[in-house]
Amino acid sequence: MMMDYPLLMKTMLDRSYKLFPEKKVFSRGTIKDTEYNYQEFYQRVQKLANVLQKLGIKKGDCVGTFAWNNHRHMELYFAVPCSGAILHTLNLRLFPEHLIHVINHAEDKIIFIDEDLLPALEKAMDHLKTVEKVVVMSDREELPETNLKQVFSYEKLLKEASSDFVFPENLEETTPAALCYTTATTGLPKGVMYTHRSIYLHSLSLSVPDYLGLSQKDVIMPVVPMFHVLAWGLPFACPWMGADIVLPGRDMRPEALCQLIEEKQVTASAGVPTIWVAMYHHLESGARYDFSSLRFLVNGGSAISKDLIKTFQEKHGIEVLHSYGMTETSPLVTASRLKSHMESWDPESRYEVKAKQGLLAPGLEMKIIDDQGREIKWDGKEMGELCLRGPWIAKEYFRDPERSKETMKNGWLHTGDIVSIDPEGYLQVQDRSKDLIKSGGEWISSVDLENKIMGHPKVMEAAVIAIPDEKWQERPMACIKPVEGEEITEEEIAEYLRDKVAKWWIPDKFLKLEEIPKTSVGKMNKKALREQFVSE
Amino acid sequence: MMMDYPLLMKTMLDRSYKLFPEKKVFSRGTIKDTEYNYQEFYQRVQKLANVLQKLGIKKGDCVGTFAWNNHRHMELYFAVPCSGAILHTLNLRLFPEHLIHVINHAEDKIIFIDEDLLPALEKAMDHLKTVEKVVVMSDREELPETNLKQVFSYEKLLKEASSDFVFPENLEETTPAALCYTTATTGLPKGVMYTHRSIYLHSLSLSVPDYLGLSQKDVIMPVVPMFHVLAWGLPFACPWMGADIVLPGRDMRPEALCQLIEEKQVTASAGVPTIWVAMYHHLESGARYDFSSLRFLVNGGSAISKDLIKTFQEKHGIEVLHSYGMTETSPLVTASRLKSHMESWDPESRYEVKAKQGLLAPGLEMKIIDDQGREIKWDGKEMGELCLRGPWIAKEYFRDPERSKETMKNGWLHTGDIVSIDPEGYLQVQDRSKDLIKSGGEWISSVDLENKIMGHPKVMEAAVIAIPDEKWQERPMACIKPVEGEEITEEEIAEYLRDKVAKWWIPDKFLKLEEIPKTSVGKMNKKALREQFVSE
Repeated sequence: MMMDYPLLMKTMLDRSYKLFPEKKVFSRGTIKDTEYNYQEFYQRVQKLANVLQKLGIKKGDCVGTFAWNNHRHMELYFAVPCSGAILHTLNLRLFPEHLIHVINHAEDKIIFIDEDLLPALEKAMDHLKTVEKVVVMSDREELPETNLKQVFSYEKLLKEASSDFVFPENLEETTPAALCYTTATTGLPKGVMYTHRSIYLHSLSLSVPDYLGLSQKDVIMPVVPMFHVLAWGLPFACPWMGADIVLPGRDMRPEALCQLIEEKQVTASAGVPTIWVAMYHHLESGARYDFSSLRFLVNGGSAISKDLIKTFQEKHGIEVLHSYGMTETSPLVTASRLKSHMESWDPESRYEVKAKQGLLAPGLEMKIIDDQGREIKWDGKEMGELCLRGPWIAKEYFRDPERSKETMKNGWLHTGDIVSIDPEGYLQVQDRSKDLIKSGGEWISSVDLENKIMGHPKVMEAAVIAIPDEKWQERPMACIKPVEGEEITEEEIAEYLRDKVAKWWIPDKFLKLEEIPKTSVGKMNKKALREQFVSE
Repeated sequence: MMMDYPLLMKTMLDRSYKLFPEKKVFSRGTIKDTEYNYQEFYQRVQKLANVLQKLGIKKGDCVGTFAWNNHRHMELYFAVPCSGAILHTLNLRLFPEHLIHVINHAEDKIIFIDEDLLPALEKAMDHLKTVEKVVVMSDREELPETNLKQVFSYEKLLKEASSDFVFPENLEETTPAALCYTTATTGLPKGVMYTHRSIYLHSLSLSVPDYLGLSQKDVIMPVVPMFHVLAWGLPFACPWMGADIVLPGRDMRPEALCQLIEEKQVTASAGVPTIWVAMYHHLESGARYDFSSLRFLVNGGSAISKDLIKTFQEKHGIEVLHSYGMTETSPLVTASRLKSHMESWDPESRYEVKAKQGLLAPGLEMKIIDDQGREIKWDGKEMGELCLRGPWIAKEYFRDPERSKETMKNGWLHTGDIVSIDPEGYLQVQDRSKDLIKSGGEWISSVDLENKIMGHPKVMEAAVIAIPDEKWQERPMACIKPVEGEEITEEEIAEYLRDKVAKWWIPDKFLKLEEIPKTSVGKMNKKALREQFVSE
């Protein structure tokens, strides 16, 4: 028989410093940038493990992090779980009461925080029930002025720590490793607990060629925040596969990101549509960079339109790789790489495929079911709810049996995403089940409609919601944010849509807004729109 | 927490027919070739599962296969383990008494056999204690004449079977899936039992870009026999990743293989040095093919020389990828891909690296220890025994506690391979511990010396063994098989080696042989040479 060898993150860490000691971590700082190699990374991770021990962190304790994409955050990504404790990445964009809730709910013992984020924690501190210590992460060793007690300097602690540390080998692979909370449509955020095993398997699956194809030739820049589903697992997979990693810090302006791609010869970057849309407009404004190293941009979180994928490719020579996932799925579930026989298709058909969410990753299992629980046809037209199973899919919400029951049923995660699937097996997200518009007994995908509207050159953002209708039960209404300085009329949009959607899909009402409200993770907040504009 | 979702081969099978129904299995037959897609493959696998059930195969039963690399063998690769039974691939080249032993030792209930291999089984049948039935695999439905009882026709059984079969989902991931025996230096072959979990993880790791980089763009031709460590796992990984597979049947002549590469647009092929050396001589003789689809040839089993790697690349434009493993390791352990910073090195230095066995695969752990159990320096010079741990490394030999104890100690597999490792982490196999030559207190690597000697254009094969020496304890003796039609003298070889090895490495004796004896798996049988030429 084969060895009972647990799938632990230690294995991943070990390979990086042993086989790729020369590969690099670059981190954009607020005071100065930091660049070091995986050998030095490992030494600091060992020191940090000693620090955690000294601060009283034990196996199973939760360690909160409140930080940007930087090297210290990445050190915590390994030191905490490899020691047997749990990395709890706090979402910087949570509303204060939610932030307080998740820290108390997770029972964080200690919080590691970037210096510039201290004010948010200072305000919350009186309400935190379990946090005993705070460690401030900064390029400076001196602590800033703060009213917090039990405050330590990260760099000072590391300086004083030994770089000898033996990570435990006797952990079980199902040991909890990391915790992320996802914002719920109603109520408080829900926690998802990842294990060593799930992170190990997720990292391996996302590295295969038809997913991200990660190798030691790569220089990967996760723009997706490290507090957002663990930056899609990239800070784990990169060291394991020997890829350089470029952490852009807090500066997410398109010019900053474009400069990093050019300067660090980034081969792939990953982020949400907001980032790529901003980059697109930056490039459209005439800015030019050397992107010859870039293999592709991974887009996730929500979809971007076929037109944008096409323009990126044809005008700027940049390939966009669509991917799909959620907090409950670690997150990566699908990626939209073309199958070999599609390479010879005409460009439009290829963009059509690339605008879909793509093919299921190796290791997962899916079913797509209609209202009656029947599996839908793979015809690209029928819609149903995507349900998932697999070793990196959540079986429950952390300490939340009630809400777990709504989402995890009979061993399947019900994603709440309404999708279609074409005969080639490419998934396309049509809508969130709660955002779907039911007009005259037929379904209208709000997401599809939004993408079509956003294809209009004068439209920056669009959100479509259902409004009650006596005759049709529901009708679509579009909230529009025009491109800065542009005027656009209802008629223009309706006319634009005429040959792109069925006639009865064209919204009855258009609403111009200065800003589309966003959730704390940057998605369009349709719930807020409904509350504001729909009298239910 | 994450789902308790077992790592089962069913997941791999499901992905192939659902997402890549159009990808192909090509199989060279003795009567006719077969080509079908993964959709049809799956239907036949389901039928076969029904057949297995009808023939009385239950969970945990061993099913022997005695077959070449063909589609029926591959159908068994999935139908048997996915049903919960154990695939036991019988080595066609085993000596009769060993063949009888492994069938009895594994307690095979049934044997699936290619029609042309029947005579070997007929001879052994009287000695087999557990085999109840024999299924003959052939393009013909009619059974051949045979003295065997309880004989069935594969195609007839399939024809009558339903293609509806639900593979069990309630298997544990540590369920035994496949069994291979490895020839031992002394005594009977030793069995290694693979599990669903080990095959799943091995397949995923070998698919990452720095290992084989398997994707749906690939057309993979395993020349390594399917009875030899499961064709290095390729028949499992290819369907999972959506790669086409080309099975060359029993015809391993270089012209047959070269034609298949050209015709089927093979992107990678895998085999042992014998295959590539023969192909090299075939190409040297002037044969020309269109190899434009070919990414690389994977070489494993034993090493090939730097000179051959270089000639393949420079004269024929073919990249050779060195890989290392053994039956006990599933088998893949290392692959020798260049690190990105080596791409700019001079060609000689690059071939130097490519001639090594390479970097450890993601997921495994190694240590290299000297006689005293101390880890050796990573200087490319010190030698020690390679020890391995990981989820696809054997923890014991099947039903053989005594010999398990010799090889598996304190949770590590002691490979018996003497290796060095350079500062970049590239392993190089120097010798089998038992083949090392100890001359005057220093070690001479017989493998290294053989490779140097085989660099001589007139030498086809060389095997170096130790002969006892009063003064030096041991001295090397080289057994040489010259290239057909060539004459070569001792002095020529000694002269050739002069600037390639230390003076005291040059063998004292050379012996010209018409054939170097081989083991049943095609490796040079140095034990036989020692028995024949060394009076101990």
